Amino acid sequence: MPRDWSRHFAPRAARMGASEIRELLKLLDQPDIISFAGGIPDPALFPREPLAAAFARVLGDPARAAAALQYSVSEGYRPLREWLANYMAGLGVACTPDNILITNGSQQALDFLGKLCIGPGDGVLVAAPTYLGALQAFNCYEPRYETLPGPESNRLHAGAGEGGGAPKFAYVMPEFQNPTGTTLDRRARAAVLDLAEALDLLVIEDAAYEKLRYDGEREPSLLQLAIERAGHIDEARVVYCGTFSKTIVPALRIGWAVAARPIIQKLVLIKQASDLHSATLNQMVMHEVAAELIEPHALEIRAAYRARRDAMLRALARHMPPGVDWTRPEGGMFIWVTLPVHLDGARLLERAVREARIAFVPGEAFFADRSRRNHLRLSFSLADPATIEEGIERLGRLLRAA
Amino acid sequence: MPRDWSRHFAPRAARMGASEIRELLKLLDQPDIISFAGGIPDPALFPREPLAAAFARVLGDPARAAAALQYSVSEGYRPLREWLANYMAGLGVACTPDNILITNGSQQALDFLGKLCIGPGDGVLVAAPTYLGALQAFNCYEPRYETLPGPESNRLHAGAGEGGGAPKFAYVMPEFQNPTGTTLDRRARAAVLDLAEALDLLVIEDAAYEKLRYDGEREPSLLQLAIERAGHIDEARVVYCGTFSKTIVPALRIGWAVAARPIIQKLVLIKQASDLHSATLNQMVMHEVAAELIEPHALEIRAAYRARRDAMLRALARHMPPGVDWTRPEGGMFIWVTLPVHLDGARLLERAVREARIAFVPGEAFFADRSRRNHLRLSFSLADPATIEEGIERLGRLLRAA
Repeated sequence: MPRDWSRHFAPRAARMGASEIRELLKLLDQPDIISFAGGIPDPALFPREPLAAAFARVLGDPARAAAALQYSVSEGYRPLREWLANYMAGLGVACTPDNILITNGSQQALDFLGKLCIGPGDGVLVAAPTYLGALQAFNCYEPRYETLPGPESNRLHAGAGEGGGAPKFAYVMPEFQNPTGTTLDRRARAAVLDLAEALDLLVIEDAAYEKLRYDGEREPSLLQLAIERAGHIDEARVVYCGTFSKTIVPALRIGWAVAARPIIQKLVLIKQASDLHSATLNQMVMHEVAAELIEPHALEIRAAYRARRDAMLRALARHMPPGVDWTRPEGGMFIWVTLPVHLDGARLLERAVREARIAFVPGEAFFADRSRRNHLRLSFSLADPATIEEGIERLGRLLRAA
Repeated sequence: MPRDWSRHFAPRAARMGASEIRELLKLLDQPDIISFAGGIPDPALFPREPLAAAFARVLGDPARAAAALQYSVSEGYRPLREWLANYMAGLGVACTPDNILITNGSQQALDFLGKLCIGPGDGVLVAAPTYLGALQAFNCYEPRYETLPGPESNRLHAGAGEGGGAPKFAYVMPEFQNPTGTTLDRRARAAVLDLAEALDLLVIEDAAYEKLRYDGEREPSLLQLAIERAGHIDEARVVYCGTFSKTIVPALRIGWAVAARPIIQKLVLIKQASDLHSATLNQMVMHEVAAELIEPHALEIRAAYRARRDAMLRALARHMPPGVDWTRPEGGMFIWVTLPVHLDGARLLERAVREARIAFVPGEAFFADRSRRNHLRLSFSLADPATIEEGIERLGRLLRAA
């Protein structure tokens, strides 16, 4: 009988289980599957040549290479933080490099914020549904989840603080939310900050998809609005998490957190204890490439993803049977499908892969309490418009037969 | 008055403070300081050209580049894990790629093992002194430290389990320990495993410096010995943490953990929740470079560091006043100096930087309880032999005047 290791593990480890998304990503290796599962950028859009040139420049200069390959400070490569401070200023957020920590993608910022704030049983407000990766990051610190009122709600959060102390923070993805694709309007953003002030919460603003807007007007970030209320970033109660994963490439693992200095200083200590620092070379290369091309490159990827979103919305209108509804996102990578309540997304997925050779993510995993099963998350970022049409047609046939 | 954020933080965050090493690393920017502080490889020894060539090869091939820049699996790039399984077999550890997780340096493996195992108040056995970064990683999970008997001790750990439940694991760096430079002989390794069996502990084996042996015979790793006792790696109670930081370069942030599959499977979930995966490109490049040159490159860096260790040992013999003792390490980067008990390493450092323009790490930070103050850690990895002679001569003058 194999050895049982569980007595060596902390209680938190018992909550960790393999995720559907993780298992699903393995399906992507099968070439005949049309996958709407992963929230994955299209590698055909990666700026490969500028990246290769930047790596060659940095490594071709012995002095720069010595710095690029050596241990460095936990807060991150200073010229990148300086560039990001300017970039954030362009988004309406006045900050300094000392308000910025470089992280391994925004996922690591979410983990660090869980580590900083959550003790066992502490309340955390999340939307229902919300980003699965945020739930996974926070779960390690054993929070008690409460539901953040949706943008359609008028009430100040009625049940907050029930059955425990005051919640620690609200986690919000204001633009093109993963998984629903929905965006908070100005009134909803103000309501989040009102709630945060009323309950004395921090707000974690996950801006992963912010630059992928295809229609409509950009709204100010929660961090910008919080700075306007507080007068200065060091007094503002929002921690903004950004990433180059959706705009440049994911696999250099470069994201950033922007917040009041006392919060960043704690996060720097957490970064040091967790993995010392993000790869110096990757930070130097990302700095060069972002400075060179982030705006024109964002234009290019927006054009490509806009066409795919439009293709998916057209295909859904054409092929979905009555009783099925879906969101019309202004950006991002996702459309959220609501099925008749008697249908179960996870069971449908088994049939979808086997019979229709399509994949998506069942909605259940995006609810902290896994209470809702009649949803699907569709990603339109990876397939071309013709493939999207074909895949949604297959989904329609499957649903008509379900 | 600035806002007080501490009520938003978990109790664990209160334990986090800035480290001496971190503050000291900033001194390295002053060119006239002779620094024996950081445990930092010499960038002149970095295989810059092979790395540049590997980046160019991977990014020059559109298909490989698409994979290198895309999201990938949390356990790590499979060809690198396959190569590491062979590499570990060469070290006497029979394992498969499924026994291996790629981490951001071995620091991240230590953090993940803390996350997996330590609940508040759980016992953790560490040597006194031990690696400061391990203490920082574990501190986030609020352990209760107990002292692991040193290699000179015969007694089975007498106090283990005092004042709490059974300890969760023992953390051991068997080769050229940071900070002392000492190495466990075969009998001491057996004693660690006897203790682990008696107390039903996991053992974390930190092998960061393993390849930097300058004299003497290599001993089997704790993992190898545990596999011999248990019959199979999936039954062995040792988690081995390796890294390329000391042998190739630190700043690609590539390390690995090797353990029983049920432990690796949990660590993979922790990796996913923490930062999804290590940079794919860096893993692909490290695979190419390690396969190409790790053995000849290790020969080269061993020759360089051996000469520096010898220079430091000669200089210490020449310049230290009576009453000062030090270790004679067979490898690694560190010599541990014991001062007369009335001297305080931290106070000495202030004078060393100001008056002698030399830097080292005061020993206090390497004790979980900070109880011993009359030690210094000297690193010989960064300075050339003539500079080492000059710096140790200055240290000797300072100590004679202290």
